[in-house]
Amino acid sequence: MIIDCHGHYTTAPKGLQAFRDSQLAGLKDPKHVPSKGTLKITDDEIRESLENAQLKFQRERGTDLTIFSPRASGMAHHIGDATTSLHWSQHCNDLIHRVCSLYPENFVGVCQLPQSPGVPPSNCIQELERCVNELGFIGCNLNPDPSGGHWTAPPLTDKYWYPFYEKMVELNVPAMVHVSASCNANFHTTGSHYINADTTAFMQFLTADLFKDFPALRFIIPHGGGGVPYHWGRYRGLAQDMNRPLLVDLIRNNVFFDTCVYHLPGIELLLKIVPMDNILFGSEMVGAVRGIDPETGFYFDDTKRYIDSVTWLSGGDRKKLFEGNARRVYPRLKL
Amino acid sequence: MIIDCHGHYTTAPKGLQAFRDSQLAGLKDPKHVPSKGTLKITDDEIRESLENAQLKFQRERGTDLTIFSPRASGMAHHIGDATTSLHWSQHCNDLIHRVCSLYPENFVGVCQLPQSPGVPPSNCIQELERCVNELGFIGCNLNPDPSGGHWTAPPLTDKYWYPFYEKMVELNVPAMVHVSASCNANFHTTGSHYINADTTAFMQFLTADLFKDFPALRFIIPHGGGGVPYHWGRYRGLAQDMNRPLLVDLIRNNVFFDTCVYHLPGIELLLKIVPMDNILFGSEMVGAVRGIDPETGFYFDDTKRYIDSVTWLSGGDRKKLFEGNARRVYPRLKL
Repeated sequence: MIIDCHGHYTTAPKGLQAFRDSQLAGLKDPKHVPSKGTLKITDDEIRESLENAQLKFQRERGTDLTIFSPRASGMAHHIGDATTSLHWSQHCNDLIHRVCSLYPENFVGVCQLPQSPGVPPSNCIQELERCVNELGFIGCNLNPDPSGGHWTAPPLTDKYWYPFYEKMVELNVPAMVHVSASCNANFHTTGSHYINADTTAFMQFLTADLFKDFPALRFIIPHGGGGVPYHWGRYRGLAQDMNRPLLVDLIRNNVFFDTCVYHLPGIELLLKIVPMDNILFGSEMVGAVRGIDPETGFYFDDTKRYIDSVTWLSGGDRKKLFEGNARRVYPRLKL
Repeated sequence: MIIDCHGHYTTAPKGLQAFRDSQLAGLKDPKHVPSKGTLKITDDEIRESLENAQLKFQRERGTDLTIFSPRASGMAHHIGDATTSLHWSQHCNDLIHRVCSLYPENFVGVCQLPQSPGVPPSNCIQELERCVNELGFIGCNLNPDPSGGHWTAPPLTDKYWYPFYEKMVELNVPAMVHVSASCNANFHTTGSHYINADTTAFMQFLTADLFKDFPALRFIIPHGGGGVPYHWGRYRGLAQDMNRPLLVDLIRNNVFFDTCVYHLPGIELLLKIVPMDNILFGSEMVGAVRGIDPETGFYFDDTKRYIDSVTWLSGGDRKKLFEGNARRVYPRLKL
């Protein structure tokens, strides 16, 4: 089985955006009393949104199962308050649950969290429990910067996050560290904010003893680990200068990178540098880059092709990358 | 000649920090009237600070000339106000000038700018002119985030920066895009803030028409271009999706990466992916990573060794990397 650990519902039917638009309009009206409201989307609309996109690409590219979550840039935790974020997250997660119920062989859910700037992450425990216990989700996306590019929250290694981590460990679910849209003009959402957040999270993990406190806590750093594998020597050197553990020991059971790197030389570097036990196949399809690479004639985000063309990977390595590691990191995955 | 385009005076004599400490103490005293003050450093102290560090490494590694600027993390533009920054920058630049006067064969100067959060970059024109016209400097370090990790300035492509760019073009000097110390707990200075700023600047350049307005403006993005070469496919794809020019055309005469990548696979990726005309040899020595790599027995930041071991580089490529490109980007370099 080939498991893609990184897919977002970027093609959701228009009813989702209609709900969001109405919710945001309410925020501008001082007399508006927030309510969860309803989502008007039919099963047929869901099917249609997937059949010509994620499902088509799964079939064409030969992947089986996508670990699927709401659109990352759509989370926009910086908008409104915790109630805004809760209603929006519940609808987004419920929609993912419908996708997974319609196509139980193709998708398994990961949830958006109702984070909000300045609100402690413990506020997200209830929605995580609901998604895992009631909807059968197997993980969550944790935003290290709910401010959307102003980076006002404490680092991921701060005790601020610990109550939420306790629940993750109790439920045995990992988090993908994933920011959302940037509202800071300096940062392009998918071009720099995403990549920067990945690099930032890794360095936070490197400089603190979070995993001594939570030996069973697991994070996936998406987009191939941001800038980290390319600068692996820099990070090894910084860790050494600071008397920190070897990187391979530091990440062993706790930090994993996906393969969302959209050219062969980048994938080769990742696979050469990062221990094979710490890499999970992912494509971010349909995501940040939608086009076909004129140099290859194939989609930029068809990351399976790059991996398939790395001739020196052993069969055992491929099995880990495509399936085994995902099963270890997401033990609630039972398919 | 082998030109290292990226060196900072990280080993300056104690008198520099003593000045800075006294300056910062003054900031805490409401009755204190800021004055430039004096730096108490002898020529012998300067010689000693270099002979066992940068000069020793130049000799050992076989490099000739370092394009040399004040310590990047020491710029700390977020501290104090524009006057604080001006006095501090002048001292730092004067000290670099003394280094270059003592060792004219080994060092050529690049200046720190008296940036300050919320103060227009045009405020830095006078110091740039002084350094170039009076001290013989050949470039500057431009901080895209004078707030030190809060990213409150407009993007580098905003007209906010244009008056300063006009002066750069008039003087025919490039800028290295280089942030300073992070005062945001999310960002480790050399581990994530530096790399993020590099990635951020590149994406700003990709999404705007800055180089149509300034065809002769030149930026060096240090630390191997942050996360960009590793994600070259992502950037090519994003540019294509946005109907932007091909990356190679976009950067051709305007954007250059150094080789401050501290392991061979990273260097190989850089040299394979980025056009050879857009890469300048650099080491950041003595800088972010001070140790010896136990896997090779050599210093992590001895980037010349990595390049030397890339067998497929032609003689012409090596000449460009080590000298030709630097002369093109820094035309005021006359040695």
